[in-house]
Amino acid sequence: MKIGILGTGIVGQTLAAKLAAEDHEVVIGTRDVAAALARTEAPWPGMVSFSEWHAANPAVVVGTFAEAAAHGEIALVATHGTSCLDVVRSAGEENLAGKILIDISNPLDFSGGFPPSLSVSNTDSLGEQLQRALPDTKVVKTLNTVNALVMVDPGSVAGGDHHLFVSGDDAGAKAEVTRLLGEWFGWRDVIDLGDITTARGTEMYLALWVRLIGPMGSPSFNIKVVR
Amino acid sequence: MKIGILGTGIVGQTLAAKLAAEDHEVVIGTRDVAAALARTEAPWPGMVSFSEWHAANPAVVVGTFAEAAAHGEIALVATHGTSCLDVVRSAGEENLAGKILIDISNPLDFSGGFPPSLSVSNTDSLGEQLQRALPDTKVVKTLNTVNALVMVDPGSVAGGDHHLFVSGDDAGAKAEVTRLLGEWFGWRDVIDLGDITTARGTEMYLALWVRLIGPMGSPSFNIKVVR
Repeated sequence: MKIGILGTGIVGQTLAAKLAAEDHEVVIGTRDVAAALARTEAPWPGMVSFSEWHAANPAVVVGTFAEAAAHGEIALVATHGTSCLDVVRSAGEENLAGKILIDISNPLDFSGGFPPSLSVSNTDSLGEQLQRALPDTKVVKTLNTVNALVMVDPGSVAGGDHHLFVSGDDAGAKAEVTRLLGEWFGWRDVIDLGDITTARGTEMYLALWVRLIGPMGSPSFNIKVVR
Repeated sequence: MKIGILGTGIVGQTLAAKLAAEDHEVVIGTRDVAAALARTEAPWPGMVSFSEWHAANPAVVVGTFAEAAAHGEIALVATHGTSCLDVVRSAGEENLAGKILIDISNPLDFSGGFPPSLSVSNTDSLGEQLQRALPDTKVVKTLNTVNALVMVDPGSVAGGDHHLFVSGDDAGAKAEVTRLLGEWFGWRDVIDLGDITTARGTEMYLALWVRLIGPMGSPSFNIKVVR
């Protein structure tokens, strides 16, 4: 499958590497391809530089946001929440029209330190902002409630017995994304929360998620909804 | 144990009935005792009027907010989030000084219909507002992530194998509340999230909780944190 990934951070890299390893044709999009490939410093401890990452993942093509969006039969946006609206505008509304856009972003604002606040919440969400910005695209919010390692390997947590959520206005798009989450990564239990306004729920859950990292001892955890 | 409960809604009633059935000395506080006992209409479908409820639970003493607070060795506030600051002011700072106040309130604002928004969130929380209003009281936020039936009977959901959270600035108070949650209701797994600012996390989780009621088929569910 032709997949466009917008964003070269830890989430974008992890998704791109996993999908390329499954023989999908992945283009990862960035603002400035030459600048991204010239980066030789690791952005965070434990990560490698983007050029090192790309050398280790040569099957992933690096392109502009617009090239990644145009390439994908489906696109994923995995940038910092504070920049994702700019990123999809750079990707081009026309390059995403008629397609599903999987929105993984969270509106975490670390400018005040830890814990982060949310740059949008309560009566709006990033998911809704993206859907309003891209009226001809089917935005499906998902994967934003777990860290990158859990996204692509749910079985690494409690044998995969936990939940993911989807929010979106198009039932067919949510069904297709739910199918792909299983096929790509092995997600078994995906709860359809409703229309794109339910993205407020999963984005605001991040305020709890960030405070669970300490008690859980690492960010590789998730929740199971039980009744 | 002498327990003061502030608020006569479904949460206050459910907690009071359960604790009185365990032979605790419970005073439930309300703004106007005569008016509360004169109510003969059910506030919601499925509930009975407060006078009928009290006739069925005669061991629970009805008093003012101040009387309930003064009576309790420990107090619980379980009012609408939009009124709980007024309620603790009515209860009297001096009547809660030196005590633990278990804060169960959520800042749900239904004035715009469903889904509710939160009247405080993101960079503040009701738990923090209560702690600031009552500097000599040990506020512990808990129980606000489940509905009233689950609060007092965690075993009714998945055999009790799910989590509750505590937030508060006083480690001893959180340990005591954790012990009481087990003794009173049977809670086995309580996660200490940290200081009272972590109440933002459990209060903002409500934005997800309200959207899970539909997919789960009822509000009697909870989450288990897995790793």
